[in-house]
Amino acid sequence: MDENTGIFYGLSILVVALSFLFAFYLYFWVKKKKTENKEIERISLLIKEGAVTFMRREYRILFRFAFIFFLLITLLLPAPIWNGNVMNNLMMGISYILGTAISALAGRIGVLVATLSNARCAEASEKSMKDAFLIAFRGGSVMGILVVGCSLLGVALVLMITSDASVVLGFSFGASSLALFAKAGGGIFTKTADVAADLTGKVELNIAEDDPRNPAVIADNVGDNVGDVAGMGADLFDSNVAALASSVVIASSLSGSYNNIGMILTYSFVGIIASCLGIACARMKKEGEPTRALNASTYTTTAIFIILTLIITLLVDGFSIRIWLSSTTGLIVGVIIGLTTNYFTDDRCPVVKKVAKASASGSAFTILSGISYGFISAFPAIIGIAFSALISYKLCQGMGEGYALFGISMSAIGMLSIVGMIISNDAYGPIVDNARGLAEMGGLSENAIKTADELDSAGNTVKAVTKGFSIAAAGLTVISLLGAFLTETNEALLSRGLPVLTGFDLMAPEVFFGILAGSAVPALFSAMLILGVDRNAQKMVKEIHRQFDEIEGLREGKANADYNRCIDIATIGALKELIPAGVMCIVTTLVVGLIGGSEAIGGFLLGNITVGLLLALMLSNSGGLWDNAKKYVEAGAEGGKGSHAHQAAVIGDTVGDPFKDTAGPSINTQITVVSLVASLTSSIFALFSIF
Amino acid sequence: MDENTGIFYGLSILVVALSFLFAFYLYFWVKKKKTENKEIERISLLIKEGAVTFMRREYRILFRFAFIFFLLITLLLPAPIWNGNVMNNLMMGISYILGTAISALAGRIGVLVATLSNARCAEASEKSMKDAFLIAFRGGSVMGILVVGCSLLGVALVLMITSDASVVLGFSFGASSLALFAKAGGGIFTKTADVAADLTGKVELNIAEDDPRNPAVIADNVGDNVGDVAGMGADLFDSNVAALASSVVIASSLSGSYNNIGMILTYSFVGIIASCLGIACARMKKEGEPTRALNASTYTTTAIFIILTLIITLLVDGFSIRIWLSSTTGLIVGVIIGLTTNYFTDDRCPVVKKVAKASASGSAFTILSGISYGFISAFPAIIGIAFSALISYKLCQGMGEGYALFGISMSAIGMLSIVGMIISNDAYGPIVDNARGLAEMGGLSENAIKTADELDSAGNTVKAVTKGFSIAAAGLTVISLLGAFLTETNEALLSRGLPVLTGFDLMAPEVFFGILAGSAVPALFSAMLILGVDRNAQKMVKEIHRQFDEIEGLREGKANADYNRCIDIATIGALKELIPAGVMCIVTTLVVGLIGGSEAIGGFLLGNITVGLLLALMLSNSGGLWDNAKKYVEAGAEGGKGSHAHQAAVIGDTVGDPFKDTAGPSINTQITVVSLVASLTSSIFALFSIF
Repeated sequence: MDENTGIFYGLSILVVALSFLFAFYLYFWVKKKKTENKEIERISLLIKEGAVTFMRREYRILFRFAFIFFLLITLLLPAPIWNGNVMNNLMMGISYILGTAISALAGRIGVLVATLSNARCAEASEKSMKDAFLIAFRGGSVMGILVVGCSLLGVALVLMITSDASVVLGFSFGASSLALFAKAGGGIFTKTADVAADLTGKVELNIAEDDPRNPAVIADNVGDNVGDVAGMGADLFDSNVAALASSVVIASSLSGSYNNIGMILTYSFVGIIASCLGIACARMKKEGEPTRALNASTYTTTAIFIILTLIITLLVDGFSIRIWLSSTTGLIVGVIIGLTTNYFTDDRCPVVKKVAKASASGSAFTILSGISYGFISAFPAIIGIAFSALISYKLCQGMGEGYALFGISMSAIGMLSIVGMIISNDAYGPIVDNARGLAEMGGLSENAIKTADELDSAGNTVKAVTKGFSIAAAGLTVISLLGAFLTETNEALLSRGLPVLTGFDLMAPEVFFGILAGSAVPALFSAMLILGVDRNAQKMVKEIHRQFDEIEGLREGKANADYNRCIDIATIGALKELIPAGVMCIVTTLVVGLIGGSEAIGGFLLGNITVGLLLALMLSNSGGLWDNAKKYVEAGAEGGKGSHAHQAAVIGDTVGDPFKDTAGPSINTQITVVSLVASLTSSIFALFSIF
Repeated sequence: MDENTGIFYGLSILVVALSFLFAFYLYFWVKKKKTENKEIERISLLIKEGAVTFMRREYRILFRFAFIFFLLITLLLPAPIWNGNVMNNLMMGISYILGTAISALAGRIGVLVATLSNARCAEASEKSMKDAFLIAFRGGSVMGILVVGCSLLGVALVLMITSDASVVLGFSFGASSLALFAKAGGGIFTKTADVAADLTGKVELNIAEDDPRNPAVIADNVGDNVGDVAGMGADLFDSNVAALASSVVIASSLSGSYNNIGMILTYSFVGIIASCLGIACARMKKEGEPTRALNASTYTTTAIFIILTLIITLLVDGFSIRIWLSSTTGLIVGVIIGLTTNYFTDDRCPVVKKVAKASASGSAFTILSGISYGFISAFPAIIGIAFSALISYKLCQGMGEGYALFGISMSAIGMLSIVGMIISNDAYGPIVDNARGLAEMGGLSENAIKTADELDSAGNTVKAVTKGFSIAAAGLTVISLLGAFLTETNEALLSRGLPVLTGFDLMAPEVFFGILAGSAVPALFSAMLILGVDRNAQKMVKEIHRQFDEIEGLREGKANADYNRCIDIATIGALKELIPAGVMCIVTTLVVGLIGGSEAIGGFLLGNITVGLLLALMLSNSGGLWDNAKKYVEAGAEGGKGSHAHQAAVIGDTVGDPFKDTAGPSINTQITVVSLVASLTSSIFALFSIF
């Protein structure tokens, strides 16, 4: 670390510290809001306990797992410990564990704040939508700020202490591997409960969504927290760290007079500043729509980031305007992708209406049209990512050898700069979803439920946009991880005096083999998760039927349901299913490397990214589309609630649930994990393979 | 053409001529079987008229289209006519038209024989399953033999006359472009009718599949012919010609002492001989299962091909045993892929049973599990294709520069060698499907219907296997087309004295851009076709409702349904929908080439192949899986007909219909067309592009 970059480390840590203070302020602001309704308090506590229990059991398994990885990493990476430097290996192992721990912590705190905010938001909705909105939003923001702060802090600390970019990959792998399992586990939990609750409640018994008679209702609310809050937080923490790590690795191989590390750190902390300012400004006008308030603060953050980075880039010596252009391209493309996603999932746009209309002819048409539009919706997003990569590459190509890839990685950093804001918007969703349930179960007024409903609906709309955004960001990140993999492989080859790879020729048989193998992995991975939900939800449906059959008076609301049995089924099922899919991805990567070496892995990453992006977008968007088509029908279209179209739309929504909340967003993490495994093991496969 | 290859041309033409004689024999053998039942004759005529009318209207549109292409090709390819050789361009244009004409003719003859065989098969099923089987199988074989014969004849003639491998690409493009539209149009027609007939008949009215009261029943039977016979014939004609064309293009750039063209021709005509022998041997034992008879003849053909080619390769000078190994690898991998497909779609295997069981919990579970297993089923097939390409490459690499790619193309030729047999098996399906309908509508005995049912069920099982096989073959073919594209591009570059491309580096931004763009195309293409079916089937459902409401006595079977209105709706809808999807693929290829040049196109082809294979396999297999799960429930599992599980299984089957018979198999053709467009236009984009 020379003097030139020292100041940027200092500033990064300062900004992170200030942002943490701001998060504390928001936390206490939410906490000091009063709760009065005993029933809401009781149920909110049940939800919190369910979530905490699940996470404790989940983390117990994951840390056992992480410990094995820690040992393997310390033994083998960056080079087998008997050949290399013991200190290096230890550093790698420790930063891996640090990555997992911080990721787990962020998720845990997020759930803590979310379960604190949900009751307060529910009670506030009795009085004012404005207040209820602010409680939910600020509650979500606490995790948003923590996640971005921790990402930068972790990367900066590891880099300051070790001065070794490769070790940052270890940190990133820690974050990703935890995220992979947390996202898969949380996703399976939440959709098991959601699907089972919907199918029995809405379809069979014809009771409202959050009716306390439904034994799965608490499990459903717990799921929102462990899946959407903790899982999604881990997911975006992972993308953010991976983008930073790949930029750092690529930057470390660059020469020239640019201050590349300084630029990475600066763009990252400016992103935190912009997000905090955006969060601070978020307000709902008395008569305004919550969606508008959420979007307005996103645009504010975007504008602040673009302007601040432009000024800094022009003023600071060694910062390049070409990098700024790349970063801005990434960010703008991200926003555009968010908007096109919105087109496919917002019920004010024609697509949702068409799917609702198709539902009137039967559920087969709901499914067919939803899947088709899901595939179509992937097109603009993928083309956007492709252009963003192409433009950044061309912009930075002239700066020197290797700068083209650095440009792509900075375009990912740009896209992810507003991630603090994105997470706040995203975490807002499950909080208001919970609040809606609490309002209903706590017996609040019709008016309060309506207010909570409106807040919830805004959460759904915004969620689709942020999801498109985070998939696109993961896409750009893994492209730069592909660059990081090449850099790492060449370092390994150079250190043994072997000729370096200039790229991966897709006509080379090993590369081609890798591409095909990589393309099949995201499909297999999604299928395993969806089947996990499918299996568990069937079990839970049986349990719900049992309770209605055996507990007298439950149907009439005179007896209490046994909520814990349902929470247990979701917990045990999720814990059982989350390991195989994750392990499959890691093992396949290693097997392909063993067969075809570095070239096969290069192809493997590419195939994995390509199909992963397509499936993630398709699954998330068709899921969002079905969800909103159902809401659109429930609001009165095509015959409204109880109609033939409604039944079909509910089936569409049920199919969409594991698409959009289990498989789709887990693919993000899957492609990052595979890319990181490849980079970390590059030295092994550069030197040994069968073909 | 030197003396060394002259004999192979002669032998090819001789074998083709003999095979045509054999096809005539089979045709007359079927024709001389008697029909007696007047009702069956009447309905069979209705089906034939519907099919012929549709095809006439379809071909009228397609030939207008082909004429525009003919003009464009003659003007621009292989080089703009004002820069190049007028004769060359004219040859290219003529061979393009020849390709379309032969493809159209093969489809037309196939439908002719199929509509001749269906009635005869139905009547024979009254007496003997053995006879009924043979009529259906031999009827299908006529097209099988014609298709493989025409492929080889066309390629051999074009090559003999022009001695220019590039012109063969023009012939192949003619075949593919017609196949693309024929497959899409026929696929939309058949599933529009099938979906509408099932939804109204089975689900709403609870009448049998081929009940004559259903106004869509004739349209459904017409669809089997225009979709499954003509469309599928065009599809496999296209794959076969494309495999030959790409092998010829690659072979023409090779040097060395091997007789490569001779090998291509020989392997191809030995495939025809093996198929004819397999067809001639096909017999059902009196008590045997029809599935076993179909599979046995496939294995016979495979064995004959492997042994004959081995002997010839060992005996003939200039033939290489490494090429034989590649070809055999391709064929064996194809058979293995067929068997794994069978595992996922046969109701004697656990997957179908699991999906049937999931149906008992509701249709959402049917859909979720079916899609998941569809994704999983793609894994072994893709890995198989990947290994087949890797092994062929490695086997032939040592033979000289460029031989590695030739090895892959010969592995595709090997896989496709038994295509005559595959088509015969495939065309058997719609014939017995029609026969089943005719038996029911013609009032044949319960016993005859049961016999026809059994034959039909065998058709479904075998169809899944042949479909997996033909997708895999298309996969290997397009890999070799990627090689052909590189060869063509380099010829264009060399002729202008520019440096040649050594490959496509996936880290190059244009290549990467192309890959992402290419990956989105098969998804968009499938979505457009599925939405086409979705829209048209909704229209037809409305028409059926109208007829039941307005035609008095229809429900009671006292009045006749207006079949022609339904045929009209399917015809008009299919003709309207088939153009946009096909044009989209061609235009996207040109736009990507214009943006990123040859490198972007190389990437584009790869992305297109990768995602195309995955989606084709997933869509075909999940469709087949649902179809058989429904049949399995109908046979009595999970409550049998009319149960809750049955309703869910029918919805799964309806979703699967356009998956497996419209989108899935059309993707095959789509990836071939895109690859051929790329090869043909290579000289343009090698010299001009924006980036």
